[in-house]
Amino acid sequence: MSDKPTIGILMGSDSDLSVMEKSFAVIKEFDVPFEVKIISAHRTPEVHSEYSKTAAERGIKVIIAAAGMAAHLPGVTAGQTHLPVIGVPISGKNLDGMDALMSIVQMPPGIPVATVAVDGAKNAGLLAVQILALSDPTLSAKYIQFKKDMAEASMKKNDGLNY
Amino acid sequence: MSDKPTIGILMGSDSDLSVMEKSFAVIKEFDVPFEVKIISAHRTPEVHSEYSKTAAERGIKVIIAAAGMAAHLPGVTAGQTHLPVIGVPISGKNLDGMDALMSIVQMPPGIPVATVAVDGAKNAGLLAVQILALSDPTLSAKYIQFKKDMAEASMKKNDGLNY
Amino acid sequence: MSDKPTIGILMGSDSDLSVMEKSFAVIKEFDVPFEVKIISAHRTPEVHSEYSKTAAERGIKVIIAAAGMAAHLPGVTAGQTHLPVIGVPISGKNLDGMDALMSIVQMPPGIPVATVAVDGAKNAGLLAVQILALSDPTLSAKYIQFKKDMAEASMKKNDGLNY
Amino acid sequence: MSDKPTIGILMGSDSDLSVMEKSFAVIKEFDVPFEVKIISAHRTPEVHSEYSKTAAERGIKVIIAAAGMAAHLPGVTAGQTHLPVIGVPISGKNLDGMDALMSIVQMPPGIPVATVAVDGAKNAGLLAVQILALSDPTLSAKYIQFKKDMAEASMKKNDGLNY
Amino acid sequence: MSDKPTIGILMGSDSDLSVMEKSFAVIKEFDVPFEVKIISAHRTPEVHSEYSKTAAERGIKVIIAAAGMAAHLPGVTAGQTHLPVIGVPISGKNLDGMDALMSIVQMPPGIPVATVAVDGAKNAGLLAVQILALSDPTLSAKYIQFKKDMAEASMKKNDGLNY
Amino acid sequence: MSDKPTIGILMGSDSDLSVMEKSFAVIKEFDVPFEVKIISAHRTPEVHSEYSKTAAERGIKVIIAAAGMAAHLPGVTAGQTHLPVIGVPISGKNLDGMDALMSIVQMPPGIPVATVAVDGAKNAGLLAVQILALSDPTLSAKYIQFKKDMAEASMKKNDGLNY
Amino acid sequence: MSDKPTIGILMGSDSDLSVMEKSFAVIKEFDVPFEVKIISAHRTPEVHSEYSKTAAERGIKVIIAAAGMAAHLPGVTAGQTHLPVIGVPISGKNLDGMDALMSIVQMPPGIPVATVAVDGAKNAGLLAVQILALSDPTLSAKYIQFKKDMAEASMKKNDGLNY
Amino acid sequence: MSDKPTIGILMGSDSDLSVMEKSFAVIKEFDVPFEVKIISAHRTPEVHSEYSKTAAERGIKVIIAAAGMAAHLPGVTAGQTHLPVIGVPISGKNLDGMDALMSIVQMPPGIPVATVAVDGAKNAGLLAVQILALSDPTLSAKYIQFKKDMAEASMKKNDGLNY
Repeated sequence: MSDKPTIGILMGSDSDLSVMEKSFAVIKEFDVPFEVKIISAHRTPEVHSEYSKTAAERGIKVIIAAAGMAAHLPGVTAGQTHLPVIGVPISGKNLDGMDALMSIVQMPPGIPVATVAVDGAKNAGLLAVQILALSDPTLSAKYIQFKKDMAEASMKKNDGLNY
Repeated sequence: MSDKPTIGILMGSDSDLSVMEKSFAVIKEFDVPFEVKIISAHRTPEVHSEYSKTAAERGIKVIIAAAGMAAHLPGVTAGQTHLPVIGVPISGKNLDGMDALMSIVQMPPGIPVATVAVDGAKNAGLLAVQILALSDPTLSAKYIQFKKDMAEASMKKNDGLNY
Repeated sequence: MSDKPTIGILMGSDSDLSVMEKSFAVIKEFDVPFEVKIISAHRTPEVHSEYSKTAAERGIKVIIAAAGMAAHLPGVTAGQTHLPVIGVPISGKNLDGMDALMSIVQMPPGIPVATVAVDGAKNAGLLAVQILALSDPTLSAKYIQFKKDMAEASMKKNDGLNY
Repeated sequence: MSDKPTIGILMGSDSDLSVMEKSFAVIKEFDVPFEVKIISAHRTPEVHSEYSKTAAERGIKVIIAAAGMAAHLPGVTAGQTHLPVIGVPISGKNLDGMDALMSIVQMPPGIPVATVAVDGAKNAGLLAVQILALSDPTLSAKYIQFKKDMAEASMKKNDGLNY
Repeated sequence: MSDKPTIGILMGSDSDLSVMEKSFAVIKEFDVPFEVKIISAHRTPEVHSEYSKTAAERGIKVIIAAAGMAAHLPGVTAGQTHLPVIGVPISGKNLDGMDALMSIVQMPPGIPVATVAVDGAKNAGLLAVQILALSDPTLSAKYIQFKKDMAEASMKKNDGLNY
Repeated sequence: MSDKPTIGILMGSDSDLSVMEKSFAVIKEFDVPFEVKIISAHRTPEVHSEYSKTAAERGIKVIIAAAGMAAHLPGVTAGQTHLPVIGVPISGKNLDGMDALMSIVQMPPGIPVATVAVDGAKNAGLLAVQILALSDPTLSAKYIQFKKDMAEASMKKNDGLNY
Repeated sequence: MSDKPTIGILMGSDSDLSVMEKSFAVIKEFDVPFEVKIISAHRTPEVHSEYSKTAAERGIKVIIAAAGMAAHLPGVTAGQTHLPVIGVPISGKNLDGMDALMSIVQMPPGIPVATVAVDGAKNAGLLAVQILALSDPTLSAKYIQFKKDMAEASMKKNDGLNY
Repeated sequence: MSDKPTIGILMGSDSDLSVMEKSFAVIKEFDVPFEVKIISAHRTPEVHSEYSKTAAERGIKVIIAAAGMAAHLPGVTAGQTHLPVIGVPISGKNLDGMDALMSIVQMPPGIPVATVAVDGAKNAGLLAVQILALSDPTLSAKYIQFKKDMAEASMKKNDGLNY
């Protein structure tokens, strides 16, 4: 796997960074090269459009887009690329991220967005890795190991229990 | 007032037409010229972008954008014009339009959308007229008369009451 | 533009002030004169009625009304003026402002309120400016510049990114 | 008890009549004189204000106000009278009356509205009668009998059961 | 007015006391005698039943019942008295009091509960006073004065405003 | 197993019968004797109290209580018996049974109600049978067989598939 | 009653422990032996399957399963045992446990889960005890006493009241 | 592309077929071989487990899982495979599919499910195709064409407009 990013991560605002760190961390764990951009579909529509349309030819294979409130970034990205787009609804001061979830998951027929949980940054990263692993046996093997390690860690939690 | 449209009405899908007829009707009542376009921000982003960016120079002063589900049309339109954008959340088979309402009203700071009720097409039209009337005394007088007529019609409903 | 206020900002209670400061700030940025009043539609209905009915003749062109809980202020203001009214739902201790949002956005046909996000004070101010800019080329130019600055500021946020 | 109405029933629109018939029916059962008015707080604010302020001196003791969507009628009535106001949230095409419920029950401190269930017209009538019965021993006796009859009718429903 | 309580205030748990203090305070302001009981309809159904059935004969005229979560106290009280019952939904750790609101306001036909806002203790007290004032001219006069004072206090809040 | 009922099924209203038929049917399938009563905790509190308190001594081991709207029946039954109580939230005209679900599942600490899905009458019956089967090996064997049959029926549905 | 556990308590994650302590405490109060396991249906499906299928033969009679977010643990446990399963929805950072509640209570016909309130760990324990008490007269007597003590404690709370 | 299925479509019940037909149709449009199975994670957990664990080795690359109510199928499938799993929440009689959406999208960290809209069967199919197209240039070209056709069809809808 080269250093050219295969996962592009977009955020509407730098306030989403603290949540999205969990995406970065889990993708790094799998040694998948990725890039991070703060691009607002509302504030910088042309930059966004350019990014979305050229992502595939630049080697990006999966795009993760995170946004809060009326979270249009994942959907409008999906409108301008044929790549799979993963959407992460970010919770805000009010409404517990329900606004972002509705804005991302309820995409009309024709333009899918693969939505994860509110603030589900880690799972967005994992989903991207799962998709890339379909054509990368080494990554696939790593993912299978990741699941085994997770299972073991989960079982280990019983060690200290004392009731 | 010339025949050049000053209100642009956008819909994400022709399935929104039956609801939006109430916008057309009320705007016609005020003799304000308008245009209607089915332009999806997801399916035809370039057409949409072109429309939004050139609306002002073509004489449009207010844009009404209606959409259902993850209703991004009003917000991404607002991102590409300095004109006021009125958003109409359209209800669908599920969720009573709550998804569209969240996607339209919860716009992040910097890009306002003037949101009306779920399926509130008539009020979207009236709001557009109110805005235009600010610089058009004839239209303003018509609006004041419209409110008087509405009040009278409301009072008339007591005539038949018999309890 | 004279010093006579063209935007009137109403609040149901002084507890809404801390949220509404963002309206004041952004309107000041555009040098648009505005006035601020704490007028409750429930506690001082006559003062409110007087304000709403005389706003237009006093030179007000757009009214912003903010309220929490069963937030009637924007709607009853809209009932008593032909001016466009912008409603800001204010969140409270419970329900995340959903009560205020429902009370403001779901206006029945005939009396529109241009609703912004829960606690969306900044966007309320921007929407008012957008509306005034329709008949004020200087203000319009400022708004276009405001959008450019916002885009630039958004892009700048990528500078420090290091992943 | 004279024929002068002691209960005033307000509706925002004649579309609320079919639900409110249940209020009329149950109040008639108790032979309490009442009046019905279609008065919109938004469309006819002055008529509404006049009604609310003069209700007490005209002999009205309890006001029932029914409205749908952003249902301001009960609250703004309560703002203009010292009489107890009962609010009935009316369900509409969307949102199952949740918008009307929020708009009626979440009144801010100082202006109470006695809210009943969505479309709870019968209970609104009963609550008005309960309040009047506090100073009317005959009515109180009738209400006690009403509860007994209701209990009996409820028990009777077991007669046909056969499982 | 004697010292015998005319308002009975029930709470399901002493954890509701801090919210309900606002009921006590506002009722005291009107010099209306009241009693406070912690009686759970679930934990002490017999005590509760005895209280509800004998309230009227002991001189109680209005009952205020406050409860959180699956808040049955107001409804089951209303089932066992012909007096008007005012319900106060109390918010808890989760769900913002929506569970209590649904449990109180959605009473089935035949057994009304006059519901106020989530944590709306002050309005519950005011509503009780409004009801008692119907047959007590002194109290009625006090209530009219209370509304005037509230209006004045609301207007005073404009004094310090400086924008 | 004798003919003396071991499951008591309570409904607040005969309008709940059509949903609850699925409880009756599935309990009959297991040949468990049961009784059905229409007893409202609001309309006939004394009958209800008597039923709840004497259920155990009359041989009832599990009570199923179904109700809609502000559904207090399961909770107040649980308050007056030490038997396990299963609650079935019944959907109504509005709110999709969310009101009944909140009123049943959110019971405060100390008084549990075993809640099933909105309109989940079949599962209520199955849960009652599961509980009885704990001390009845024949019934337990039947339940194990029931699960096998259900699995087989589920697999059979693949037979006709043709894609 | 022997020391062999009759109640099995499962949690999806050790982060649920702090809430579930209330289950442990109340079950200990009744001297019922129980076991606690952290077993994720998602991370360790085979361990979970083994546990569920062998629970009955190992003497477990009731299983309590607690989980947050998309809380599948109670339901998939119920799919693999004929024992009654009690589900506890655990609240998380967002959505107030509504996601967990929906995921647990809305089980499809055929596989019941006895659901308690969000974070209702104490009631889960009590429900398990109630079920076991059906075939254990000593435990039943203890439960009856528990309800008496709870009633007394509730009444005691009136002692300090001073209004 | 061979005839061996690369997309596996699971449904919890045959009642989901009518919604899922839109997945089948769109996948057929792209000539991607797929298989359809009715496998309930609750009713036939062993069949389900076998399917999930062996899917990858049998050549399946993406699994689409659809379910209603407490929709665990997508999540528990994701727990037992390293393949990407797409979840489709199916709406039912009550709650508009909100229960299924919560149960699918809110997966805890470690086990992602790529969630689409309520009843979003078409988008689930498209998302699966997008993922497969990443390593299949012919399919990728088809998808790019699909988006062009969709854009053209969307624009065509303006032809008949006449306002």
